[in-house]
Amino acid sequence: MPRPSVREVIVDTAVTEFHRHGFAACSVDTITRAAGVPKGSFYNHFKSKEDLGAEVVARYAESSGWRDGHGDLGPLDTLRARFTVMRDVLVDNEFTRGCLIGNMGSERADHSPVIRKQVGESLTHWSDSITDSIRQAQAAGEVKGDKDPELLGRFVLDAWEGAIIRTKVAKSVAPLDDFFDVVFGSLL
Amino acid sequence: MPRPSVREVIVDTAVTEFHRHGFAACSVDTITRAAGVPKGSFYNHFKSKEDLGAEVVARYAESSGWRDGHGDLGPLDTLRARFTVMRDVLVDNEFTRGCLIGNMGSERADHSPVIRKQVGESLTHWSDSITDSIRQAQAAGEVKGDKDPELLGRFVLDAWEGAIIRTKVAKSVAPLDDFFDVVFGSLL
Repeated sequence: MPRPSVREVIVDTAVTEFHRHGFAACSVDTITRAAGVPKGSFYNHFKSKEDLGAEVVARYAESSGWRDGHGDLGPLDTLRARFTVMRDVLVDNEFTRGCLIGNMGSERADHSPVIRKQVGESLTHWSDSITDSIRQAQAAGEVKGDKDPELLGRFVLDAWEGAIIRTKVAKSVAPLDDFFDVVFGSLL
Repeated sequence: MPRPSVREVIVDTAVTEFHRHGFAACSVDTITRAAGVPKGSFYNHFKSKEDLGAEVVARYAESSGWRDGHGDLGPLDTLRARFTVMRDVLVDNEFTRGCLIGNMGSERADHSPVIRKQVGESLTHWSDSITDSIRQAQAAGEVKGDKDPELLGRFVLDAWEGAIIRTKVAKSVAPLDDFFDVVFGSLL
């Protein structure tokens, strides 16, 4: 197996560090120390901590497991299963960390155009995927056809990101249960 | 008019500083400098920056204008008017800052029990108020009586907090429009 590049090690480490502590609370120094690479190597690979932040958001979004298959489930059950995977990660993390995309949006959107752009793209990519599922569920007769799937895709993602904040604050699964009850019990 | 106390000046300044820059990005030094008070006076009034953070969340929640009257509107229109006030503030701020309660929850819930507790209380207070409006709207026949007002109160607040994150990221009112469309167009 090839040795991961210094760049890869920095990105992987920063995913964990930013997720645990937040962006402002981490420095290039704390990240390179946690990664076990020389601090001087950082600027061979990244222009700035902001640049690393944008790459971290993209990496996190890609590796979320959101698009993993769920066997022969129908479209609505597949969507529910995808959110359930995310829910289980939050339970395993004892309701810490939350969603790195939402965290970075909340913390950095006003201060870093490069991170803001990447968070925006990741959110749109994600809500588009939810919209696709809703469209398929409409085609399968599982969701009423008169509902706007694009509007619902965006709204459902916002409701999820808000539920994650309350879950972090309450240190309880209850806000995620609320999400499933409303979204899959009455909204869709 | 009595001169505001040093303590008041620090809290008022910190509301603005934490809202603009985030908690980790502000120090006791930057806050006391922005407040125009001696740094040494800080610890006469607060045990720590965390303690100030909790007080800032409480102050922000109290002064949000959420409970201001809206004339003779019915309960559902009053609820919509309350969210519209919040929307207009976000528009005036050009979609910067977001909601300080949500920001502090996202950034500090894992790191500060005292801030986490205050954010939790402020969120519960707020969702209870939404629940009250929904109950009144049910009594007035504006919302179907078979919907669980407590569940909806919590869910609507989560959807709002998530919409605010996306509004900050998109620098656009569109996510707030999505919220109004779904919540007042079909959910309630």
